[in-house]
Parts: sequence; structure tokens; C-alpha cells
Amino acid sequence: MQYAWWSHGGNELSTGEKSGTSGTQLKTNVQTQLTSSLSKRSLAIHNMQTAADKYAVKAHKNLWTETNHSGNIVMTLAENRNFNERFAQRLGECAIWTKPILEDLHYNHPIGVQPVREAIARHVNQYVFKMGKFPVEANQIVTGNGVLAVLENLIYAVADADDGILVIAPFWHGFVPIITGRMGVNIIVVKTDPSTYWWPSKNALDEALREANRSGIKCTALMVCNPSNPLGKVFSEQQMLSTIRWATSRGFHFISDEIYAATVFDDTVPFVSAWDVASEHLSPQQQHLVHVLWGPSKDFGVPGLRMGAILTKNPQVLNVEAGASVFTMTSTPMQRAIAEILSDSTFVADFMRKTITHLKQSCDSFTSELRRHGINYIAPSAGLFVVIDLRSLLPSRPTFDDEFDLYKKLCDAGVVITPGNDCHTPEPGLFRVCPFGLPETCYSLLSGRIADLHADLTS
Amino acid sequence: MQYAWWSHGGNELSTGEKSGTSGTQLKTNVQTQLTSSLSKRSLAIHNMQTAADKYAVKAHKNLWTETNHSGNIVMTLAENRNFNERFAQRLGECAIWTKPILEDLHYNHPIGVQPVREAIARHVNQYVFKMGKFPVEANQIVTGNGVLAVLENLIYAVADADDGILVIAPFWHGFVPIITGRMGVNIIVVKTDPSTYWWPSKNALDEALREANRSGIKCTALMVCNPSNPLGKVFSEQQMLSTIRWATSRGFHFISDEIYAATVFDDTVPFVSAWDVASEHLSPQQQHLVHVLWGPSKDFGVPGLRMGAILTKNPQVLNVEAGASVFTMTSTPMQRAIAEILSDSTFVADFMRKTITHLKQSCDSFTSELRRHGINYIAPSAGLFVVIDLRSLLPSRPTFDDEFDLYKKLCDAGVVITPGNDCHTPEPGLFRVCPFGLPETCYSLLSGRIADLHADLTS
Repeated sequence: MQYAWWSHGGNELSTGEKSGTSGTQLKTNVQTQLTSSLSKRSLAIHNMQTAADKYAVKAHKNLWTETNHSGNIVMTLAENRNFNERFAQRLGECAIWTKPILEDLHYNHPIGVQPVREAIARHVNQYVFKMGKFPVEANQIVTGNGVLAVLENLIYAVADADDGILVIAPFWHGFVPIITGRMGVNIIVVKTDPSTYWWPSKNALDEALREANRSGIKCTALMVCNPSNPLGKVFSEQQMLSTIRWATSRGFHFISDEIYAATVFDDTVPFVSAWDVASEHLSPQQQHLVHVLWGPSKDFGVPGLRMGAILTKNPQVLNVEAGASVFTMTSTPMQRAIAEILSDSTFVADFMRKTITHLKQSCDSFTSELRRHGINYIAPSAGLFVVIDLRSLLPSRPTFDDEFDLYKKLCDAGVVITPGNDCHTPEPGLFRVCPFGLPETCYSLLSGRIADLHADLTS
Repeated sequence: MQYAWWSHGGNELSTGEKSGTSGTQLKTNVQTQLTSSLSKRSLAIHNMQTAADKYAVKAHKNLWTETNHSGNIVMTLAENRNFNERFAQRLGECAIWTKPILEDLHYNHPIGVQPVREAIARHVNQYVFKMGKFPVEANQIVTGNGVLAVLENLIYAVADADDGILVIAPFWHGFVPIITGRMGVNIIVVKTDPSTYWWPSKNALDEALREANRSGIKCTALMVCNPSNPLGKVFSEQQMLSTIRWATSRGFHFISDEIYAATVFDDTVPFVSAWDVASEHLSPQQQHLVHVLWGPSKDFGVPGLRMGAILTKNPQVLNVEAGASVFTMTSTPMQRAIAEILSDSTFVADFMRKTITHLKQSCDSFTSELRRHGINYIAPSAGLFVVIDLRSLLPSRPTFDDEFDLYKKLCDAGVVITPGNDCHTPEPGLFRVCPFGLPETCYSLLSGRIADLHADLTS
């Protein structure tokens, strides 16, 4: 589970059978002692655990399974596990296991072996950069052990500690530990709301920048996740272009996290990569400020493989990443296997088609359950999540404290989902739900539990 | 090659066929432009390239091979490739490829799956912690993608930027980019020399600490690599104990990099882990300050797999690493394969026996070539390197500049080895040679080239 995965690691490690202390006790001890012998910066790792994370620990101990229908339904993890079996089988068939390449056991170039960067280039050119006019080349790609890890390296390259990065909200709560916790860089939230189709107006961008400047924070980059996590929205070419122009004309880097690019199941708004937008409309110098992140984790449901990539035309960034990548190397035989799988065009085409069909169908099924139970939602067109609107369960003039109270009630009622506050939503009452990692049998149960809570609260 | 691997990444990436610029030209351009749009800290990655690295670029373009005997012999990489074939075959036989575990494709706990931590515990308890009295447990182990990566995470936990870490010299030049370049922590060199068996006296430790304090640097840890890289020496239990006591009595962390623990081919001085020393002699509180690093890269000749581990009894460090490890995860199927291989006791015992036998024989063969050509050396008892003594090729009262001149002459004569200055040797003229990654046929050639250079210089 995402919260567990990200935030409760310490507990799992330290409250094993042998320690005999509860997670809460241990955490308290640790917090007290930390300042004495560990670095101050390492406290950031602890402080990044949100109140929601902490509250959910209990709920994680009794999870819904096929045989435990009264367990808690945890839908906080953006993972698509539906075709894992097919992928695992293909992974096992890779030539690398039976016809090993001895060089794979040696030190290799930190940026990734040539075949995996070539395979990623081909794959991205087909499934992400759909214009086809501005293909990325293997030598514009740096790989690492997951998009999380390469994002850390990219932040390292574009911002010093105490600088600021503007991030278009709402955004994935995991950005905070990466950008702020580890790299010491301030996140400047760029607010959006439905009135501007969840995309920042020039005013919103200007205002965010002014606020940063007022606080003495030097901004160096603007970042977005397109398609949006948590909204599941695809932003239009025109939206992207105006914002990329706003950023690059100020000399800011523009970072586009496009890890969900191939999960678009409703192409009413066609997905256009920041790479294509920049290549089509910007000067070569400005194009050097645009960087795209991609990895197979979401399209193929394989975050456990740890593969991510920075795509950039900027020779300076490529040079820095070539050095920084020594910390973020993926096992070479695994790179080779991923290269083989991405190059198997029949497998990939079939896998992507099935995934998209399934996502669309699951989304229809989930949203129809929501409708049946009278729960409002923001209709997604991509991604592995649906934002539901529970404002009707909050008091009038609600605060984020009220939202947190509701979050706790939801947890207690067996519904663990991400509160909007953690994603910097513009107002309280929006929750991110990740239904696609669990079977459809959960959808009705989850919606029913929310509806029951609604009935309880309004009775 | 190690230099290439660490330092010349940028060139490979950016001076492909398309760029048409030489590495040197590009580097200059990059340096000029960097300050304008990249972070100041990212410059550290570039500045870490030593003068020796830069000079060796040319030599890397014409490498010795079985069919190019006039090529340059590069012996700067501590890698044992002699049993790669056997290992690759065993890797391919792992059950995980034919009987996949679907959970391996999912997000998993950043510290590593339970089976790999259990397998590492068993392996280390047999081959590293030889006392057998103080076994490490799986829940005291945090894994990551290589010892380099977990060392970065450990430094993050024990030191803030601008703090200092005392490092016993001579040491592996790669520590500098990790500790200083990325983590912003000062390295305080603790000098040693043959008069104290290459181990620091209390005076040397006190003096290094005083010097740090005089510069206003707060030291938080003492670090050593045992067996020593570059010396190939094993330090005695008594040496370790006195130094661990010196560190922990001051509240400093003690970091023992024991990646070469299972490469001891001459056990005149038995290897004793810092873990055992601390467990036997220190209070539980002091034991919390001792951390051991281990990985299979050297014993098995498999740095390309990217697996490393921190072993510690410190619950605070374990908690910080549980969070920090999200950046340093190894592919889960690869973790599972490594777990299976480490648990195959017949394979491991046979592999280790063959490796040790081969290392001993290769070392005998290499040093006998050195003797035959009149080249002095420091006899190693472990590791993948031999320090040779070329002081006779330097002028009287030599400086490290003289050593660098000799280094360049060696490069030009087809001998690429690491100058002592990069390892903080106490005086000029010592060079680290890594012979075991190349066939024995090179040994005579290398020694001959050095002898010829000697003849030229002294004629």
C-alpha cells in the first residue's frame, strides 16, 4: 500500500516479533532521541509522514481480501495489477536469463546500458511522443531505479537547497518527501480549481511566484504531472504551451512527469507531451529547459522493477545526471530484460491495448457504483485514480480540519483513501481513490460504506 | 573501467557521433554555462573528476585485449571477473524467472524484501561475522542498489552538510564524490603510514580531530574500509577495537566498509568484523554507533546487479534508512534471485573457495612478475588490488606533482593505474593496481612496461 510503502517502513522494520514495542511507542522514542546522534536533515524523513499516514497505520492491520470481506479497503496506491501474470511470464522468457551477457555483471555506465535507452526511446516515441515529428534519441535519456529516484537527481541538478520549485496543484503527495525532504527544496504550490479546468491561469502562476519572492525564495523550475495525479485529467496542448512559455521565458526549468502518459482511456482531450510542445514551439535554447520523466511502472503495473528515465535535450543536465546516476543504477540484467520486453512490439501493443480497455471498463464500473450510491466525482480520462467529492459530508464552511475528521471516520468505516489536503486540493472534501489495484468486487463495497457513512452523518 | 565508469560518463553521453565535439571542448562549454541555469551543488559532480581521471580519457580509447596486445592496460577497476560465467549461469537458473512471484512487480518495502534480508543475514553471519557469537538479524539490515548508494543514505543519516567525517587513509577515491560531492560533508583525512602498520595511532586520530575543530568542522563519524582498499591489508581485532573505542567514546558513529571481507586470501591476520568487535566489547548504547556495509559485488564479481546493505543495531538509523531507501531500491525480482543464490550453500561455498584460491594464485603470479621486474610492492592479504612502490622512479624529495608527472608517463607507456595522491597516501610514489579483472597474460606485460619506463628514466 502506498502509505505503508512510503511512510510506515520504520515500523515494519523495528516492530518485528523481537522488538516487542508497538509502532507508536517506537516512533515516540525515535523522535525523542533523534536529535542527539543523527543528522538534522534525517529528521525530514520522519516529519514527512502526514497525519493521514499516521492515522491509517491501524487500518492497514486488517485488510480486505477475497476471504476477509469485512477488512479495510485501502485504495491509496496507484498501481494496476491486473496484468501482472502476463508481464511476469514475459519477464521470465527474456533471453538474458538463459543467454546471459557477462558484461551485465560488471560495472556499467550509470545512465543505463545502450539497449535499454534505445528501447525506451523507441517506446516513448510511439506511446508518449505521439506527434512523431520530434523523436527522442537514446543519448538524450538517463535511466535510474525508478522515476522517484531520477526525479531526485533532476531536482539536484536544477535547484539548490532552499531554492523553490513551483508545482501545479493538486499533486501527488509523494513529491513532498522527494523535493523538500531529501533535496531541501521548497515546494511553491500553484493553485488551480475547476473554474480554470484545473490548470493555472497566468495570474495564478504570477501570484505563486510573487509569494515565493516575497518569502525570499528563488524559484528555478515549474513542475507538473500530466496526465494529472490525482485528477486523472489530460491537459491540452494550448494549456501546456502557455505554461511552458511562462516558465521558460523566465529561465525556469519545466519538468513534466508523464508517467501516466500511456494510461489515457478517454482521449476527448488528446495527450500531448511537453517534449512535443517544446519541440514544436520553442527555441532550441528554451527547449533545453524542458525535461520529461517517464517509466514503465504505471503502464505495465511494474513499480517493483525500478526503472525510470529523464528525457532531456539539455547537455548540462545530461552531464550532471551521468555523474549523479551512480547512486540510482538499476540492475543491469534487469535493464536488459526491460529493453527486450519494450522491444517486443507485439507484446507491448497487446499489453497496452488490454490495459487501456480494462482501465476504461474498470473506471466505468467504479463510477457507475459511485453514481448508484449518490457519490459525486471528477470524471477522469487517464491514470489509476478517481477523485471523489465528499463535500456534502462536511459541515458548511468546511476547513481542512473538518476534512481530516471525515478522513478518520472513513478509515474507521473501512475506507482508506487519500484526503485532498495531502494533494493540495483547493478546498476540503475531495479525496483521491485508487480503485484499479483491487478487484471490481470491492467497488460496490467501498461505495456502499461511503453511502452508509453519509446516511449516518446526515441522519 | 572505474575511472570511465565514475568520471567520464558525461563524455560518453554527450560526445556521441552527433555532437562532433571532443570531451575536452564539451567539458569547457559545460563549465562555462553551468552556473547560469543549473544548481550550484550539481557542479560538485563535475569538480570531482580528478586530474588523473581527465588524463586517462585518451588511454581508454585504445585498450589492451587478447587481440590488441599493444593496447593500454587499464588496472584501475577493483573487479573480479574470473567466475562471471558460473555466476551468470546460476542467475539464469533462479526459480524466480520461471515461477514468478507477482508481488515482486508491485511496490515493495524500500529496505528490501524479507527473503533477501534473511539471506544476507545468513551469508554475512557465515562469511563476514566469523565469530558466530553475535549474528546479525534480518531486521537489522537495510538493502539498496549497491554499497555506494546505501553509503550515501548512511552519510545522510549521520552527518549534515558541512559536518565532517574522519576517514582512515589511504582510502578509495570514490568516497570523495559520495561523501563530499553529493552529501556536502567534509572528509577529514586520518593519516597512517607503515610505521604504525597503516593504522592510525591515537595521536593521529586526535590530531585529525583537532584540525577539523580548528576549521570549525563538527565531526560526527569515523570511517574505515577493512580489508583496506587500496592496501589489501586486514586490520587486527586490537587495532579495530582501540579505534572503535576512540570513536564511540566521543559519540561518533563508526562506519566499517567490509565489502572485501570475503576476499581474504592470506589469513595471517584474521579478519574480524567491526560488528563482532563492537558486540564483544562495547555497551549496547555504543554498539548503536557502529554500522557495517556489505554487498556481493566484490566476493561474487557482480557490481552490475546493484545490491548493497547497511547492517546496524541502531533503531534510529534503521528508521531513517527505511524512509531514505525509497531512492535506492533494487529491482525486486533481482532481490529475490540474489536471495536464492546466497541461500544455495553448495554454490556459495564452492564459489567462495574457488575465488579465494584463484585470488591467491593470481596475487602470487602478479607479485612474482613484479619481483622479476624489480618492482617493489606492499604485499596484500585480501582485496582485488596491489599497491606498488614506484618511489625509485621519482626525483629525490618528491612531491605529488612529481607523482602526477610519473602517472602521465605511465599512461603514455600503456599503464593506467591509480596514483596514490587520489587515495591520500602518506607520500608520493605509491600506486594502486587492480590486476584481477584482466587475464594473467597481462601481468608480465604490465610489469615489463613499468620496468622499461624505469630503465628509460634512469638511463
